[in-house]
Amino acid sequence: MKIQVLTDILKANQTIALENKKIFDENQILVLNFMSSPGAGKTSILEKTIQKLKKDFNFAAIEGDVATSNDAERLVKYDIPVVQITTESFGGACHLDANMVRKAIESLDLSPVQILFIENIGNLICPAGFDLGEDKKIIVLSLTEGEDKPSKYPVAFRNSDLVLINKTDLLPHLEIDLDLLLQNIKKVNPDLFSVKLSAKTHEGFENWINWLVKEYRSKI
Amino acid sequence: MKIQVLTDILKANQTIALENKKIFDENQILVLNFMSSPGAGKTSILEKTIQKLKKDFNFAAIEGDVATSNDAERLVKYDIPVVQITTESFGGACHLDANMVRKAIESLDLSPVQILFIENIGNLICPAGFDLGEDKKIIVLSLTEGEDKPSKYPVAFRNSDLVLINKTDLLPHLEIDLDLLLQNIKKVNPDLFSVKLSAKTHEGFENWINWLVKEYRSKI
Repeated sequence: MKIQVLTDILKANQTIALENKKIFDENQILVLNFMSSPGAGKTSILEKTIQKLKKDFNFAAIEGDVATSNDAERLVKYDIPVVQITTESFGGACHLDANMVRKAIESLDLSPVQILFIENIGNLICPAGFDLGEDKKIIVLSLTEGEDKPSKYPVAFRNSDLVLINKTDLLPHLEIDLDLLLQNIKKVNPDLFSVKLSAKTHEGFENWINWLVKEYRSKI
Repeated sequence: MKIQVLTDILKANQTIALENKKIFDENQILVLNFMSSPGAGKTSILEKTIQKLKKDFNFAAIEGDVATSNDAERLVKYDIPVVQITTESFGGACHLDANMVRKAIESLDLSPVQILFIENIGNLICPAGFDLGEDKKIIVLSLTEGEDKPSKYPVAFRNSDLVLINKTDLLPHLEIDLDLLLQNIKKVNPDLFSVKLSAKTHEGFENWINWLVKEYRSKI
């Protein structure tokens, strides 16, 4: 019975995700779903990206969090429309789902938006199974988390299109084997494109920006 | 209906957790349930702790992971009994539950064990709601995760007895405001005892070891 319920939930989610995708496509919006462990640097990367590209693109963001609107408050400073989803009111759910995103986009004026960032709940397990209607899934992985995370959280890595390996500024102070990390990523998902960067120093940001601009151009 | 099923699951879990607790108490075993984000350093802390106290205590460990036995392999090197629970076979569950722990202890000889570490799945949301029969819940928080994690993941911090603030060796290279982090912890749980330490340099380990030995003595 438990599995039956779960299957029904996933099927319902997929139906709504496809409807969301249709809305995004009609409005020619590139939609990116960001997933990571807590504190890997999703919001910091979004802040720096919006700063760099604000003159070129109209951004919007949907922020997922269990209990606070901290991240939304950080992004709203850049004068972009932001909708906060707090899952405490959904029983403290450990991931966003397509219906939450549907509700969020009802309160956004989509017509001027070109790129929509959806920042998922900080969690490497639950968000991976729930499509939201996005074009691409992006994992942010902090170098401080160690080499073995792709093997330990394979579904998220398998279902994603890009991994942003963040906090490269800390590399001299860590014992991490970067080559082994890249090998572990390839083992789980040979097609997963990876970009090393630092939201603190902006090192490597040009590669991520290039990816983003290219994705936008191929969408419209 | 969804909520009904969830309530039933939590009730069933609590019943089994209490039975586990009884088994642990009869065997005079101190049982600690470790929770954290992925890569915060749970296994590293356990490795160093076992190294330091191996002559004084008989340890055992139950390792929870979605997809690998990496952590169990790290601990088994210290010649202690380790049972791996891989939740891939439970639909990729994002937390351990009391029944998984029950199955694990069936394959352990409990009689010589004095301290049992249960390393939960790397996840700051799901594990917090599921008692396993432990005496105490411990959060490991890496300094690299930022000041706001207690506010963003309040249930885990509210339900825990100790927070080990790990990776203090990286403090000179981070922008984190440690006082603000401690304030945020106190706001969510004024009774949560905190110890700052580094699994890399062993700085602060004496405070954690003192806590552990004291808990063991007060249990037996």
